[in-house]
Amino acid sequence: MKKPLILVTNDDGMFAPGIKALIEVVRELGEVVVIAPNSPQSGKGHAITIHDPIRLHKVDVFEGIEAYECSGTPVDCVKLAKSVVLKGRQTDLCVSGINHGSNASINIIYSGTMSAAMEASLEGIDSIGFSLLDFSFEADFEASKVIARKIITHILEHGMQNGNLLNVNIPRIPLKEIKGIKVCKQAEARWTEEFAEAIDPRGEKYYWLTGTFNSEEKDENTDIWALQNGFVSVVPSSHDLTNYDAIEGLKGLEEN
Amino acid sequence: MKKPLILVTNDDGMFAPGIKALIEVVRELGEVVVIAPNSPQSGKGHAITIHDPIRLHKVDVFEGIEAYECSGTPVDCVKLAKSVVLKGRQTDLCVSGINHGSNASINIIYSGTMSAAMEASLEGIDSIGFSLLDFSFEADFEASKVIARKIITHILEHGMQNGNLLNVNIPRIPLKEIKGIKVCKQAEARWTEEFAEAIDPRGEKYYWLTGTFNSEEKDENTDIWALQNGFVSVVPSSHDLTNYDAIEGLKGLEEN
Repeated sequence: MKKPLILVTNDDGMFAPGIKALIEVVRELGEVVVIAPNSPQSGKGHAITIHDPIRLHKVDVFEGIEAYECSGTPVDCVKLAKSVVLKGRQTDLCVSGINHGSNASINIIYSGTMSAAMEASLEGIDSIGFSLLDFSFEADFEASKVIARKIITHILEHGMQNGNLLNVNIPRIPLKEIKGIKVCKQAEARWTEEFAEAIDPRGEKYYWLTGTFNSEEKDENTDIWALQNGFVSVVPSSHDLTNYDAIEGLKGLEEN
Repeated sequence: MKKPLILVTNDDGMFAPGIKALIEVVRELGEVVVIAPNSPQSGKGHAITIHDPIRLHKVDVFEGIEAYECSGTPVDCVKLAKSVVLKGRQTDLCVSGINHGSNASINIIYSGTMSAAMEASLEGIDSIGFSLLDFSFEADFEASKVIARKIITHILEHGMQNGNLLNVNIPRIPLKEIKGIKVCKQAEARWTEEFAEAIDPRGEKYYWLTGTFNSEEKDENTDIWALQNGFVSVVPSSHDLTNYDAIEGLKGLEEN
């Protein structure tokens, strides 16, 4: 049987330990092609580069693996993968990450990791974004690798049925403390911004974004609940942002 | 009665004719504060600036209107509006646009205009993104102004009920040819990328993103159908990307 073709990308850049961990998992499961940003692209959401040229270079970073670094955003990486690097080849799976930090709840919206996966899903490719709840460069990905292998193997065997995008978040605890996997929904939450305000060496004021994540979600069927209770969260996601429940109540707009 | 406080932003920057048109509409309906990017930010999606400082300056561009230009993304503008400029003030409505170009269908995902509106909606503010299906700087916003006034007045009076975000797209036809307003869902579609490949003056290859938008959507309850048939489309939108229909089919993942 032909080995599946697996596209790997991320938003932390080619040298992040998280993408190395993910490549170690998928190189045992299929033929792997890597296209990742040449600089950290966290928080880039679904940004694309339209006012500037994009550079793409083949690099030799992961032994025996075809890899490219790209000057654009995570979504640009996926677009270039499809149109230039993998042109005409059938891509069976796209995996993005493993992100350094949570993409649970509303973080999916800001996440370059998940936007890359969503872009591949828009192209009809089964796609999974993986994130570990540890921002540090020294994060330990050993448990994450076991979880990623389990989920990727399952999806390669069984597919996803009604949809083609998963948002997987992994708690920062040792493997033996992980209670299992929960398939759940995106929790409600919001960020409380606290801009740091300071003066630069030229005497000009600047702001630097910071903030705290707050979720008062009590529902047990959410990713936040799963993660707080020692489970890996898997949220099937989509690009349909329609708020179907609101359509009826707005029909008055049509009568003006 | 106290006049509503209306926040105006966009992604085309402070000098785009579209934001001028929108300000002309809302200045008659409430107290207006403008915070817009100091450079075009199309296609920035929900990007935020985390690795760099952000600048914010008060500017005198629109007569009698409090206005600020910001060096960040559209989402940064809204975050600064809430945390710094309007700190502690009750914002009644956020309007974003009027965008030069369509944000119907999946364009909502890439759109800085809609991401700014979504960011305000995440803060609990009723928010509307407006887009005219005309990319040119010379676009005629006269019909759009009439439509925007109608929709904003309706929302200020009636609210939105189940949700707080609208994606409004306006066809590029004269007002008298517009058949009405359709409240509908986001159409399925995809972009077919066609990267322009060229050589820079130093002899290095580069790629420049281009592409064509394709929708084979036949459903009459979609924004694409509405726009193709002379209607203004209004899609109530949300930040919940959960694909609820896929949860059940993935429960096998929990049994590993």
